[in-house]
Formats: sequence, C-alpha cells, structure tokens
Amino acid sequence: MRHTYREIDACGVKVALKLLAGKWTPIIFYHLGAGPLRFTELWHEIPRVSKKVLVVQLRQLEEAGLVARSVHNGFPPEVSYQLTPKGAGLVPIMQSLDQWAMTHITEAVHIA
Amino acid sequence: MRHTYREIDACGVKVALKLLAGKWTPIIFYHLGAGPLRFTELWHEIPRVSKKVLVVQLRQLEEAGLVARSVHNGFPPEVSYQLTPKGAGLVPIMQSLDQWAMTHITEAVHIA
Repeated sequence: MRHTYREIDACGVKVALKLLAGKWTPIIFYHLGAGPLRFTELWHEIPRVSKKVLVVQLRQLEEAGLVARSVHNGFPPEVSYQLTPKGAGLVPIMQSLDQWAMTHITEAVHIA
Repeated sequence: MRHTYREIDACGVKVALKLLAGKWTPIIFYHLGAGPLRFTELWHEIPRVSKKVLVVQLRQLEEAGLVARSVHNGFPPEVSYQLTPKGAGLVPIMQSLDQWAMTHITEAVHIA
C-alpha cells in the first residue's frame, strides 16, 4: 500500500533519524567525514568507548550501508573504515545540525 | 568541565537528534513548517494519532522551545501552534534529511 506524499516525507525523515540515533554515530561521522581511518585511529579519536562497543556500532553502520569496512592484508591485517556515498550524504546534514545546536542549545557544551 | 571542540561538535548533534526523536515530531514539523495551525487543523493533518498523544507531543516540543502555543479567547477558546525561530531553524535540516532519504532509503515508502 502506498501512502500520501506527506506520510512518505515524514517517514523518510524518521528513517534517517533512526539511522543516526546510535550513541557514537555522530562522533564516528565527525571523524570519518574527514576521510578513511584505521580502526585503531578511529578508536583513539573517540574518548570513553571500548573497542568492543565501537566495533558493534561500526557494524550497525555498515549494515545500514553508511560505512564501508576494508581489510588490508598484512601482518597484522589492518581494518579501515570509510563513509559510503550514502553515509557521506549525511555529513553536511550533521554539520547543519551542529550549527543549529551551537546557536540554540547552550547546554550542549556542558555534557559529562 | 569543558571538553574538546570535537566532543562538543558531536554532542550538539546528539542533543539536536534527541529533540527530533519524538514519534510524531517529523510530521508536526512538516505541517507547522508551512505556518501556524489550530490544534484541530494540525490533528486532522496527521493520520492515526489521538488528540491526547498529539497534545503530549506538542507539550514536549513546547518545553524544548521548538513550538509556541497561543490561546485565542473566544467561545470556544482556540489553541494554535507555530514553530519558534529555534524550531524553524530545523525545518531546512528536516528537508535535507528527507531529500537524503528519498535518494538512499527505498524502503521509506513501504511503511505500514
């Protein structure tokens, strides 16, 4: 069953919001938005996250088609992550959200 | 305690995303983005929501400073809602999210 365009509009936004809702998603996007990173580089950029949790979050983003994982053979093998075109399309939107928050959300600078 | 700019950036996005996470928030923004509406007008625009649930959602958006409620004296008194400047700042971002979803999320048109 197809719905009216109004429902579709609101629904697309909801699907997009849901994809971004992971606890570490914004900061992962922030760092991968600048280019591909090895797993350990990304992990070092993100404070207070365990490797295990970061792997799980990255896997979810990979399953959503937002992030691509590459394994580079070698010893030890290296794993790197980068945004897919689908994921990269969200970077300017994240930046707009950040800009909006900077203007309107004063408490954003006081998180624990 | 202040954090690094990187954490603040990601945090602002998270605060913004949290504000938008209400089940009916995207569709409320969609309709109020076009201008103020009386409560009953807004309710008629949104399928499958009870008046009670819509009132609660609007109250949350009002508390977050995104929506303003006005009471017009008369008999019966009329209540109308409009986006505040803070809320209106999110409309183009919602539109970008919608555009992104239209491009990348094919299942968005198949919700029940």
